[in-house]
Amino acid sequence: MKKIKISIPATVSNLVCGYDILGLALQYPCDIMELEMLDEPGIFITHIDEFGLPEDPTLNLSGIALQALLNDYTSPVGFRLTIEKKIKPGSGLGSSAAAAAGAVIGANFLLNNFYSKEELVEFAMEGEKIASGVKHADNLAPCIYGGVTLIRSLEPIDIIPMPSPELFVTVVHPQIEVKTSEARNILPKNISLKDATTQWANVAGLIAGFYSNNIPLIGRSLVDVIIEPARAALIPGLEEVKRKCMEHGAVGGGISGSGPSIFMFSQMENVAWKIEKQMMEIYTNLGIPFKTYVTTINPEGVKIISSE
Amino acid sequence: MKKIKISIPATVSNLVCGYDILGLALQYPCDIMELEMLDEPGIFITHIDEFGLPEDPTLNLSGIALQALLNDYTSPVGFRLTIEKKIKPGSGLGSSAAAAAGAVIGANFLLNNFYSKEELVEFAMEGEKIASGVKHADNLAPCIYGGVTLIRSLEPIDIIPMPSPELFVTVVHPQIEVKTSEARNILPKNISLKDATTQWANVAGLIAGFYSNNIPLIGRSLVDVIIEPARAALIPGLEEVKRKCMEHGAVGGGISGSGPSIFMFSQMENVAWKIEKQMMEIYTNLGIPFKTYVTTINPEGVKIISSE
Repeated sequence: MKKIKISIPATVSNLVCGYDILGLALQYPCDIMELEMLDEPGIFITHIDEFGLPEDPTLNLSGIALQALLNDYTSPVGFRLTIEKKIKPGSGLGSSAAAAAGAVIGANFLLNNFYSKEELVEFAMEGEKIASGVKHADNLAPCIYGGVTLIRSLEPIDIIPMPSPELFVTVVHPQIEVKTSEARNILPKNISLKDATTQWANVAGLIAGFYSNNIPLIGRSLVDVIIEPARAALIPGLEEVKRKCMEHGAVGGGISGSGPSIFMFSQMENVAWKIEKQMMEIYTNLGIPFKTYVTTINPEGVKIISSE
Repeated sequence: MKKIKISIPATVSNLVCGYDILGLALQYPCDIMELEMLDEPGIFITHIDEFGLPEDPTLNLSGIALQALLNDYTSPVGFRLTIEKKIKPGSGLGSSAAAAAGAVIGANFLLNNFYSKEELVEFAMEGEKIASGVKHADNLAPCIYGGVTLIRSLEPIDIIPMPSPELFVTVVHPQIEVKTSEARNILPKNISLKDATTQWANVAGLIAGFYSNNIPLIGRSLVDVIIEPARAALIPGLEEVKRKCMEHGAVGGGISGSGPSIFMFSQMENVAWKIEKQMMEIYTNLGIPFKTYVTTINPEGVKIISSE
């Protein structure tokens, strides 16, 4: 096998209360990446999308992650990447994680799964670090493992894949710019022990809900008393989207990653579509361009489309 | 049924990283309480133990909790309580929770389980509030539900019972005084977001470990970067106990509740006894009187010994 085409899913990190530790993979949207293994060293990147991302491998997140892998790999091989990005950068849907994860997982398929998933997360983090200025894996892990993942620790890396609830996910991406680094700078450096305790109670409830497939418990636990209140000002419409979606039967939801996308869970497909309608109405009224997605949790993560 | 004799278990709250939200019930030690239902209103308490606790029901935690229940109950009944306390007050093993929970759960048996477990927790909290100055349920809930419990929220009350791991629990109670209120006052009012994130990552790992019966994960998650560092100064020998027990094969552990007791988990019974020996040596060398217990998690909570 010398050539592979893969789809790399968008991801929702944080999951409201689980700042920096939780994430899940979506079925849709996905980036498409074609990787061809070369007998000579070198990384060659072509983008066939509209986002104007750098193709120089030392500036491109896929290139940086892939280089981290190649620095570790014993034989001198190279890769030619053709990337069709569909997850818009800066959407809060793990666009940079998809770029970094796709490159290393695709290369690893061609290297006969030489590396473990954990090792791939380590390589991909080298790319992610460039995007956000901080080493983190809450989008990378669900992208590489699929489903819902917990990052218990980064040093040493400790990733816990957990059962995915059977839920629909409706996402709205209001097309405003919220940079991950800015969204991080707006956060408080210190918080009260009281709020922290409320937060870890909800994190505990959410994990218990995932393992016991207790949807009402998942809903009750999707409360963030620390991060979302600080970031709410960056995302016009957030409170209204949450309120209206809950009124129309959503299980719960909130900011996806550092925003501006907002995700909402629902148990029934018809509710997921009703919620989308609410989101569309709100951003139409606000005069903000938007995109919406109605999808489910992706238990597999990156998928192979074709190989030769 | 007019009379009942019950055993009420000691409990370990916090479970290291889960400050204020997690707890578990032990098989041993247990308080013994006899309750007799009377046709006339009134609460009459006799203690047959060494602790000199007040028998006036308005000053006694069992009396206060029971009165909260009777204030709600429709018919005018009374109770005569004979209490043999074996869980020493101030041990960090849920002595006051056992007093409050035992009274209301015992009375509820005699009232043909008129109240739900959640309601019993509410009544018992009235007693607990007197002991610690704060309304909390992290010892009450495992005492009443058995096993491991999560308090996701107090208002409204939301208790999540969860699977108990098959672990031995070795406890040492160094006989020094650590008042719950003092142990709370020593805590920082504010913490860094970074530490809070580390803490909820470990809480998440611990819950995942309980649900998946993943003992190594439970062990790795039993890390407290906030509460235990602040309280360590109150408990001589803590660091040495933890270090020596880990060297001898413990899974993990830490302060029980607000201390001074220390608990350690182990997978094998022989390890649980080896650990006890370590604890005994350490406190003998420190010249501090102590008690130890080698036991397991109690999945039932309060048990009926006899009834007539």
